[in-house]
Amino acid sequence: MNNIQSYIKQHKDRFLNELIELLKIPSISADSAYKNDVLKTSEAIKISLEKAGCDSVEICKTDGYPIVYGEKIIDKNLPTVLVYGHYDVQPPDPLDLWTSPPFEPVIKKTDLHRDGAIFARGACDDKGQMYMHVKALEFMTSTNQLPCNVKFMIEGEEEVGSSNLSVFVKNNQEKLKNDVILISDTGMIANNVPSITTGLRGLSYVEVEVTGPNRDLHSGLYGGAVANPINVLTKMIASLHDENNHITIPGFYDKVEELSKDERAEMAKAPFSLDAYKKALDIDAVYGEAEYTTNERNSIRPTLDVNGIWGGYIGEGAKTVIASKAYAKISMRLVPHQDWKEITQLFKDHFESIAPEGVKVKVKPHHGGQGYVTPINSVGYVAASKAYETTFGKTPIPQRSGGSIPIVSLFEQELKSKTILMGFGLDSDAIHSPNEHFGVWNYLKGIETIPYFYKYFTELSK
Amino acid sequence: MNNIQSYIKQHKDRFLNELIELLKIPSISADSAYKNDVLKTSEAIKISLEKAGCDSVEICKTDGYPIVYGEKIIDKNLPTVLVYGHYDVQPPDPLDLWTSPPFEPVIKKTDLHRDGAIFARGACDDKGQMYMHVKALEFMTSTNQLPCNVKFMIEGEEEVGSSNLSVFVKNNQEKLKNDVILISDTGMIANNVPSITTGLRGLSYVEVEVTGPNRDLHSGLYGGAVANPINVLTKMIASLHDENNHITIPGFYDKVEELSKDERAEMAKAPFSLDAYKKALDIDAVYGEAEYTTNERNSIRPTLDVNGIWGGYIGEGAKTVIASKAYAKISMRLVPHQDWKEITQLFKDHFESIAPEGVKVKVKPHHGGQGYVTPINSVGYVAASKAYETTFGKTPIPQRSGGSIPIVSLFEQELKSKTILMGFGLDSDAIHSPNEHFGVWNYLKGIETIPYFYKYFTELSK
Repeated sequence: MNNIQSYIKQHKDRFLNELIELLKIPSISADSAYKNDVLKTSEAIKISLEKAGCDSVEICKTDGYPIVYGEKIIDKNLPTVLVYGHYDVQPPDPLDLWTSPPFEPVIKKTDLHRDGAIFARGACDDKGQMYMHVKALEFMTSTNQLPCNVKFMIEGEEEVGSSNLSVFVKNNQEKLKNDVILISDTGMIANNVPSITTGLRGLSYVEVEVTGPNRDLHSGLYGGAVANPINVLTKMIASLHDENNHITIPGFYDKVEELSKDERAEMAKAPFSLDAYKKALDIDAVYGEAEYTTNERNSIRPTLDVNGIWGGYIGEGAKTVIASKAYAKISMRLVPHQDWKEITQLFKDHFESIAPEGVKVKVKPHHGGQGYVTPINSVGYVAASKAYETTFGKTPIPQRSGGSIPIVSLFEQELKSKTILMGFGLDSDAIHSPNEHFGVWNYLKGIETIPYFYKYFTELSK
Repeated sequence: MNNIQSYIKQHKDRFLNELIELLKIPSISADSAYKNDVLKTSEAIKISLEKAGCDSVEICKTDGYPIVYGEKIIDKNLPTVLVYGHYDVQPPDPLDLWTSPPFEPVIKKTDLHRDGAIFARGACDDKGQMYMHVKALEFMTSTNQLPCNVKFMIEGEEEVGSSNLSVFVKNNQEKLKNDVILISDTGMIANNVPSITTGLRGLSYVEVEVTGPNRDLHSGLYGGAVANPINVLTKMIASLHDENNHITIPGFYDKVEELSKDERAEMAKAPFSLDAYKKALDIDAVYGEAEYTTNERNSIRPTLDVNGIWGGYIGEGAKTVIASKAYAKISMRLVPHQDWKEITQLFKDHFESIAPEGVKVKVKPHHGGQGYVTPINSVGYVAASKAYETTFGKTPIPQRSGGSIPIVSLFEQELKSKTILMGFGLDSDAIHSPNEHFGVWNYLKGIETIPYFYKYFTELSK
């Protein structure tokens, strides 16, 4: 890949400004109030793909937000890379914790990002990482160095379950035909410790509603005499973990893949400082399932977390009321072989079964996805590994991620190809949190590394 | 009391319209956004007391909302009745459950209120019940039948703890000197089963905050590896009750007054239908402390209820986040001899002691008050009982209420006089709930009954 570094140097400011413009659009797929912004973002993606050199780009309608599809086919006999990314973002709240507005991107230096990082919702997840691929394509086409065919599929519903993408994939297998799928929607260990994600957790996301009396009640007149939906909900949620922080849902662990001592020993080699971890989060101790390390708890073990809870009076001051209803949003991270639909059903059956007399309980499944593990001896993985070696000067470490990209296992099932997860973000980039950011160095390093993946993948495929 | 019935008949519409005007002002003391409305209400009370015949009325400044004080002294040698009430109201939310706007009063018929009931926040608690006393005074002064001296003390902070009233009372003992204190801020069993409240529960209201990591985290990357403040909060709250719904705070029950078999048998005589109770609340079962009846659970037993809980993402859709903080508002209803400050400290010590590693816990006391029991052989009680006999044709049943009027025990302590709780509302009037209302019949019956209390109290005091 001739001149990639000089090309980046020359166009660096434009690469940053183009991303900043994209980040200014609040494409929050979870909140229908932002519908027009999400649609506007799909238009922007279409234009950027055309400018980057795609021959044909289309905005494909779905029952939800559209999928932007673009391709550049140079020779049917050459391999084809399918790039997947998403242009929607997580809701930014709590807003008061942002040091700058989430949709007014600014570049600020941090301890880990000495060259500065772009602070904005979506900077890393996933607009920034997705846009690296657009710019990498621009470089390869404008310098006539694109070694194979490429297809882009950029969706707008990843943060809400990708339900329409799965339909799209099933209905467009020929169009999406490829030899490898390339995604940058994960992280790496550190800027000087490159890693490639070889595993993802599955997800089951549900919302529960506990209803007690048919109206809010005065806690003096009724307190102690009727089931309080909030107290009941806390008891029910608390019971979902035992004293060892094992999840108590019957059957939950039945299909969990148990790693061998050797595999766990291999994992343990990844550099990790528990003190630095605690310091970064300002906590005095970690917490989790007995007999597993922190890195195991958030990667090879399934978990259950309450993501939101609400009920009763949450305004200023005091209100002595017993609420009629209490709610919680609960998500479970799953490991390979746990089927998210099966786990969702197990949760529903169990949660409804533990409801005490005097309340009614509803469990509403939100969305979910399967976990995924990729072998490290596939052509795609080896090509990615060589690409990192070239640009980082180090062999990347294979790493299991605790996150989920529900669609990945569906890709393998429907398109019969492996997915390579080349992530350039850091865990500390605060994705899904206030002050999400993406290092300028990481952004440019991604643009530099991706073309080498194309090069090596094409060579190794011969 | 000559012509009281004909007087009420003649002025009924005006009595209703004056109350409706008062109910239109949203005097929500818990929410500073309504400051001007609360102050406006105090002005309206001042004017109404002047019109009703008070000689001197003043708006007394405090560090919070003012106290309206008025008096009519006809003869220093005659007894003095001190009327207490409050002009502030509870927040109206959840607004979507109101069938008509909370501050646009309307009169609607209900099964229990065949003559109609005024629907509005504060209709019963306490604007409606407080205003009965103003209209009763109007009758007695305008027909020259006021048999003794009367003082009014109407505050604007009852729903937020009356902290400034207590200071006012301590500093104005001479001004507030009286022979009996009369309050209508409770209920009665039914329109055909009059009752007088002889006991009130105390209150301790706290807010708790659980802090985990220093920022919201991605539940995929951190789920299962750090303490989730919401999961932890649910575990902590759940642990506050054991399997028999006894409260687990060490020392909580130490000073609880245990009633004798006879007293409990006496209480059990009050007419009560568990089926009707469950039907009215649309619940399939009641719930509470083992070995106590529903009426005991909400009157002679202390309780702990979560009044509000919140944390994480509570918006539309899904967000896979681990919140940095989780909160709850918790109130405890106390019985006589439990000291609210002591209980608040016990709660604080216990709740902080059960916090697991990995989180920080803050307990912020909101407000509280002592419980109260009044003997049924006092001059005041006997006078009230005779007043009900006269206007209801039935002897009222002495009844313990589960509610709290924190200031009552302070009155006895500071002013050395007994409080008589003549309440004319019904439990079904939905105070503190959406669609609060107050029966037109009850409103007028109160206005009719109160003057007889003055008459009998003056006669019995001779």
